[in-house]
Amino acid sequence: MFNPQLNKNGELQHLLTIEGLPKPILNHILDTASSFVSISDREVKKVPLMRGKSVFNLFFENSTRTRTTFEIASKRLSADVINLNIAASSTTKGESLLDTIDNLAAMHADMFVVRHSQSGAPFLIAKHLDDHGQKDIHVVNAGDGRHAHPTQGLLDMYTIRHYKKDFSNLTVAIVGDILHSRVARSDIHALTTLGVPEIRAIGPATLLPGGLEQMGVRLFSNIDEGLKGVDVIIMLRLQNERMSGALLPSAQEYFKSYGLTPERLALAKPDAIVMHPGPMNRGVEIDSAVADGAQAVILPQVTFGIAVRMAVMSILAGTHG
Amino acid sequence: MFNPQLNKNGELQHLLTIEGLPKPILNHILDTASSFVSISDREVKKVPLMRGKSVFNLFFENSTRTRTTFEIASKRLSADVINLNIAASSTTKGESLLDTIDNLAAMHADMFVVRHSQSGAPFLIAKHLDDHGQKDIHVVNAGDGRHAHPTQGLLDMYTIRHYKKDFSNLTVAIVGDILHSRVARSDIHALTTLGVPEIRAIGPATLLPGGLEQMGVRLFSNIDEGLKGVDVIIMLRLQNERMSGALLPSAQEYFKSYGLTPERLALAKPDAIVMHPGPMNRGVEIDSAVADGAQAVILPQVTFGIAVRMAVMSILAGTHG
Amino acid sequence: MFNPQLNKNGELQHLLTIEGLPKPILNHILDTASSFVSISDREVKKVPLMRGKSVFNLFFENSTRTRTTFEIASKRLSADVINLNIAASSTTKGESLLDTIDNLAAMHADMFVVRHSQSGAPFLIAKHLDDHGQKDIHVVNAGDGRHAHPTQGLLDMYTIRHYKKDFSNLTVAIVGDILHSRVARSDIHALTTLGVPEIRAIGPATLLPGGLEQMGVRLFSNIDEGLKGVDVIIMLRLQNERMSGALLPSAQEYFKSYGLTPERLALAKPDAIVMHPGPMNRGVEIDSAVADGAQAVILPQVTFGIAVRMAVMSILAGTHG
Repeated sequence: MFNPQLNKNGELQHLLTIEGLPKPILNHILDTASSFVSISDREVKKVPLMRGKSVFNLFFENSTRTRTTFEIASKRLSADVINLNIAASSTTKGESLLDTIDNLAAMHADMFVVRHSQSGAPFLIAKHLDDHGQKDIHVVNAGDGRHAHPTQGLLDMYTIRHYKKDFSNLTVAIVGDILHSRVARSDIHALTTLGVPEIRAIGPATLLPGGLEQMGVRLFSNIDEGLKGVDVIIMLRLQNERMSGALLPSAQEYFKSYGLTPERLALAKPDAIVMHPGPMNRGVEIDSAVADGAQAVILPQVTFGIAVRMAVMSILAGTHG
Repeated sequence: MFNPQLNKNGELQHLLTIEGLPKPILNHILDTASSFVSISDREVKKVPLMRGKSVFNLFFENSTRTRTTFEIASKRLSADVINLNIAASSTTKGESLLDTIDNLAAMHADMFVVRHSQSGAPFLIAKHLDDHGQKDIHVVNAGDGRHAHPTQGLLDMYTIRHYKKDFSNLTVAIVGDILHSRVARSDIHALTTLGVPEIRAIGPATLLPGGLEQMGVRLFSNIDEGLKGVDVIIMLRLQNERMSGALLPSAQEYFKSYGLTPERLALAKPDAIVMHPGPMNRGVEIDSAVADGAQAVILPQVTFGIAVRMAVMSILAGTHG
Repeated sequence: MFNPQLNKNGELQHLLTIEGLPKPILNHILDTASSFVSISDREVKKVPLMRGKSVFNLFFENSTRTRTTFEIASKRLSADVINLNIAASSTTKGESLLDTIDNLAAMHADMFVVRHSQSGAPFLIAKHLDDHGQKDIHVVNAGDGRHAHPTQGLLDMYTIRHYKKDFSNLTVAIVGDILHSRVARSDIHALTTLGVPEIRAIGPATLLPGGLEQMGVRLFSNIDEGLKGVDVIIMLRLQNERMSGALLPSAQEYFKSYGLTPERLALAKPDAIVMHPGPMNRGVEIDSAVADGAQAVILPQVTFGIAVRMAVMSILAGTHG
C-alpha cells in the first residue's frame, strides 16, 4: 500500500493515518504537543512558527467542531487560514477534486487539512501532490470516511499519557460501534504501537469487526465483563443515523446494554479515566453522572487536542520533503 | 435575579444587559470608546490590546450585520476571531448548548460574543462559566430575543453624548414597536441611568408595554404630540414579520401613522438628531428625505458602534475575575 | 460614460474594467505583480503593505474560487479580511445595496471586492462612494454579470507577457462562448491596449457578438482555421447552464466542434501556450491531454493571479483620491 507519510529522511511528510507510524514519530508529536499545552495558558497564546504560511481547511464533509479545532490551532501558530466548505456535489468526480487541489497548490498553499466522507481521499491528495513534486505541501487527515482520524487518535494518546504516564502496563477498553468508527481504528493502531499490553473492544457483536482479534484485541459483547479492571475507558459516539438502523435497537435499548453508568464505571479500576471524542449523546452511550464526574477527562481531551494539532502542523511545516 | 456582570471588585466581567449597570461603568465604556474612535481614522487601524486572544462569535441566530461589527472590532484589537454560525436545530436542548460552551472553553476561549433568539441565553452561558470557575472567559450579549442588545444601547448613548454633550437636560423619544424591541429596552435603561429627565415612547397603543410608565417613561400613541420639542429621536426598525400580523396595519398605513417625515421632524427641536439602529425600512418607519437629511446621525452611529464594541471587548479582556 | 477608475492625478482609484485603462497603468500593475510573484516563493509569504486595512469581500454571487484568491491576496498583504456572502434576495433593491455600502463604509472599510450577477454593480458602488466624498475607499470588480472581470484579464496579460515577453507581434485566439464571457471582454480590451496586432475570436456564429469586428477582432466559426499559426490560445469555460440551452448543441457535440484536442493544438505555432480561466470542463471545451500537456499554462495562471490581485490591491491601498 502506498504510504507517503514519511519522506526519505524518515520525517513526517503528511499525517494520514496512525497505522504504520513509527513509535519515535508518535512520541515526537506527543512531546511537541506538551510544549504547546503551556502556551495555551499564556496571556498571548500565539507563536510565530507558521507565520505567512497558508493553511486550507478543505472540508468536503461538514464538521464545525473539527474545523474549529484546526482553525484555532492554525491561528495560534500565526498561520493564515482559509476555510473552504466544499459541497460534495461539486466534487463528485475524482478528477475535479484533483483539479481543485492543483489550483490551491498553484496559489502556494502550504498545508491542506482534509475532511472527507470517502475513505482514502486524503491519501489520494497526498499521492497526487507527491507525484507532481509538490514536496512542500503537507496534508493532514481530519477524518476520512470510516478509515482514520489520526489527530483524534493522537490526542487520545496524549490524554492517556498525561494521566497514566506509562503505556506499558495498561488495560484500555473501547466501547461502542467499533465497526463504523474511525476513532476506534486510529486508537487501536496507536495503542498497539505505544505498547499497551491489553486492548479491549466492547460492543454489540454485530458492531465488532472480525479482524480485530488478529490485531491482539480482546472482544466483549458484555460490557460488564469488558470493563472489569480497566485503566482507561474510551467511549465512542453513537452516530444518530445508526440508531434507527437494522444493526441496533433503540437509543434507550442501547443505553441499557452499553451505556456507561456509574455502576458500570465502578467495575473498572478506581482510578480509571473516561474518555469520549465528543460530541456526547448523554443518556445514549454515556450517563450524565459519568460525563460530568470526577473520572471523566473529556474536556481535557479537547484542550490537549488543540496542542496536538499545533504539534502536528508545526512539525509538518518544518519538514521539507 | 442573577446578575454576573460585575466581579467582586466591581469590574465588568460580562456585558449582558444595560439594566443594573452602574453609571461609572457606562461612562468608563463611553470614555474608552472615545479613544478608539480616533484609531479608526488612522492609516493602521489596529492596536495589539487583544493579540493572541481567541474570540468566538457564537451566532445561534443569523445576523450578518452584527456579526460583522464584532468581527471588525475584534480584528482591530488584533484578536483571533472564530465565527460559528450554529443552526438552532443542533442546540435545541439547553444541555447541548452548554456542552458546546464547555468544549469551546476547553479550547481556551477568551470571549464569547453570543447572539441568540431566546432571551436569557447569554446569561445562562455566563452563569455556567462562573459556576465552573472559568473566571477569564467573558461573555458579550450581541442580542438575545426581545430582552437586550446592550452594545446597541451603548452606541446609542455614545452618539447622543457626542452630539448633545450632556444628558441632564434632554428629551429623548423612541418611536415604533417598543413592545418587541430589545433596542428600546436597552436604550431606556441606559438613558435612565445616565440621567435623561424625559424619555418618551411613541407607538401604536398595542405596541407600548404596560410597565414603562412605572419607569418614568411618557407614552404617546400620537406621534405628532410625542415629537414636540424633543432633542433626540430614536426610530426603531419595524420587523417584517410584524407587518402582516394582527398587531399592525399594512406598511403603508404604518408609515402614514408613525413614519418619520420631514414635516414631523419639524415638530422636534431645530437641532434634534435622528437615530436608527439599522437596517432601515425606507418608506415604512422613516422617509428617505429624513434618513439622508442633515439631522440624521445614522451612519455615525455605525462608526461609533465599532469603537464601542472595541471598548467593551478590551475592557473585558483586561478584567481578571 | 462615467468612469471613476482614475483619480484627478491619473492614478488608479478603483479597478472596475480594463476598458479605457491606459497602457502605463496596465504595465504598472503587471510590473508590480512581478515583484509579488517572488514573495509567494518565500518561507514567509507576507508583506505588511496593507496591515490594519479592512478589506470586505462582498460576494452577491457565490464564487468560492474567486473569493479564495482575493482572500489569500489580502492576507499575504497583511490586511484584515471580512467575507460577506450576501444573498441576492436581501439586496434586490438598488437602494438597500447602497445602504449596505454606506454602513460598511461607516465601519471604515478600506476596500470592497465586489462580485455581482448584475453588470454595473461595482460601478454603481464606486460612483456612490465618490459622490459621498469617500475618497479613501477603493472598489475592485471581481466579476459583474457579463460585463467585466478585470483581474482575470490582468492575470491573463501577465501570463502572456511572462511566456511571450512582447505583445507587439502576437496572434492571440480566444475560443468559446465569447458572447456571454466577461473574461473574453476583459481580455480583448487588454490585448488591444497592449498592442497585440491580431486577436481572433473563435466560436459558434450564434456566440460571436456583432461588435467585435469594429474592434479589429477577426471572427472564426471554424476552429481549425482560427487556430492556424497562433501564439496564444485562451479557452473559455462553457457555462453549464448554456449547454442545455437553445444556443448550443450537447456537450459532446460542442467538444466535437470546438473542443481543444492535441490535433487542433498542432495547428497553432509549436511554442503556442494554452490558457483557461478555470474551472475546466475536461472533455467539453478542452481535452485532458491538452489540459495536462506541456503547452498548458493553466496552473501558472493561478499562481500569477494571486500576484496580480496583490498588485491591484496594494496599488489601490496606496492611492489617496
